[in-house]
Amino acid sequence: MKVFTEIRAIREHIQTERFAAAGKGQNLTVGLVPTMGYLHDGHASLLHKARQISDLVVLSIFVNPIQFGPNEDYDRYPRDAEKDLALAEREGVDVVFMPSAQEMYPEPIRTKIKVEELTERLCGASRPGHFDGVTTVVGKLFHIVQPDQAFFGQKDAQQVAVIKQMVKDLNFGIDIIPCPIVREADGLALSSRNVYLTPEQRQAALVLSKSLHFVEEKAKSVGGVIVGDIRSDLIDTISSEPLAEIDYVEITKFPDLTALEDPDRLDSIGSDVLIALAVKFGSTRLIDNVILEKKVLTSC
Amino acid sequence: MKVFTEIRAIREHIQTERFAAAGKGQNLTVGLVPTMGYLHDGHASLLHKARQISDLVVLSIFVNPIQFGPNEDYDRYPRDAEKDLALAEREGVDVVFMPSAQEMYPEPIRTKIKVEELTERLCGASRPGHFDGVTTVVGKLFHIVQPDQAFFGQKDAQQVAVIKQMVKDLNFGIDIIPCPIVREADGLALSSRNVYLTPEQRQAALVLSKSLHFVEEKAKSVGGVIVGDIRSDLIDTISSEPLAEIDYVEITKFPDLTALEDPDRLDSIGSDVLIALAVKFGSTRLIDNVILEKKVLTSC
Repeated sequence: MKVFTEIRAIREHIQTERFAAAGKGQNLTVGLVPTMGYLHDGHASLLHKARQISDLVVLSIFVNPIQFGPNEDYDRYPRDAEKDLALAEREGVDVVFMPSAQEMYPEPIRTKIKVEELTERLCGASRPGHFDGVTTVVGKLFHIVQPDQAFFGQKDAQQVAVIKQMVKDLNFGIDIIPCPIVREADGLALSSRNVYLTPEQRQAALVLSKSLHFVEEKAKSVGGVIVGDIRSDLIDTISSEPLAEIDYVEITKFPDLTALEDPDRLDSIGSDVLIALAVKFGSTRLIDNVILEKKVLTSC
Repeated sequence: MKVFTEIRAIREHIQTERFAAAGKGQNLTVGLVPTMGYLHDGHASLLHKARQISDLVVLSIFVNPIQFGPNEDYDRYPRDAEKDLALAEREGVDVVFMPSAQEMYPEPIRTKIKVEELTERLCGASRPGHFDGVTTVVGKLFHIVQPDQAFFGQKDAQQVAVIKQMVKDLNFGIDIIPCPIVREADGLALSSRNVYLTPEQRQAALVLSKSLHFVEEKAKSVGGVIVGDIRSDLIDTISSEPLAEIDYVEITKFPDLTALEDPDRLDSIGSDVLIALAVKFGSTRLIDNVILEKKVLTSC
């Protein structure tokens, strides 16, 4: 496993690998797993998938300052390079890219990649400028690594939708491969931010997966559930948890993230449906979601 | 010379060429000359330069709708594919990419690449959204062709500065090679839009190159010329031409396009200086410029 901190060096390494493979008549495919580090089993599942699909697996670890708002947790975001490298080694990663903020932003950046519409709701509404920071850094990483595939966790469902839109609109020519949410045994979605939670908050946070599981089962078993009922169920359940403070409860089409109205029936939407939550426990904001597939919704 | 209209086909062709070269131990370099067609000797000089530098020369011809404002000349922008292909053949182009607007924008684009600051002045002020359209389509073309070098005319000096900024900020890893303005024998800068001019307007338009030439000589020969004097000279000269209507006369640092103040002395700026004009003749808006190099300004 090779570890790079400089853009020039990793670019050169990947180009050399591709060139050497082509010299032997092999078309080397490169898979990128972009992360902010403090890796958990969710990240491991992305690396595992990349190992199955791509010839050369590249893991990037970079806590990207420009996707954090001024009052967010950039400074305290958890970091553990040593543990991350051990996990990467275990998952058979070929190349790790862990640049400094100075390397990625040697001077204030004047160029942004901005996706409109899809970024206006959900986390985009709660975190202004967040997705511009995400698409810009992902664009930079795509240019540095030039992957054939890139792997993203479905926990950040809106991020998946936004990156797919960017790749399509700008002709990046990269396959975006979303991977399922990985959960603890008790249902909590894995997140590097779970480390912030007190034991009481962690227990309270189970209300996210539980409430999502409940409405998912309801939507699957009852024909023609109404969006407003799903929304009420979620708000009631989460509000019953005293430590939970709702940021948003959103029910939208997926992947275009068009909002659904309360009277809409889930079996008449005509696309997959995203049910997405953002809830604060103390100062820690967690997200979770479920995607109800059209074919399941219409077969009730 | 191969001509492609489909993104998938040109992408595949270039990848195949690269792969085949690598199989023989050759690192094929690709040079892109992005144009809106209706090619003239200015474009020919870009292709000529590309032929000198790059192994595979790619010419793109695409009148990009999203860089035109609602009241601009998208519909009447001159087009002549047959003549363009003949010129390309003459200049030894390997690959021509001439997609339809439908191919480049199969649905309304939601993603933009935006460069801040540099795009706010000069043509950016006169043409709101213009540079977002330019950087977005150039980003798309860069992703489709994946060139090692790209060639742009210095006549669009601000465009050169903006593209360089974008490439640096987003780590495109592409060399941007600006090429000098090509002029008619009487000084008029070549432009596809010159075809719009009546004979009287074309004669009047000589005031651009003449006034720029005059201030350039003055700046070179007289130590410590004042920005305000250059500006007055230009405005006076151009205003003396009854058919000319000034859009802007700008004197800025280059390439960062910071505005210079009237009391500034040209020999104390500490960078190259751009003198840029946009002037309308009837409904036709022409641009022209000169760059005064720091080393020349300080050696007077």
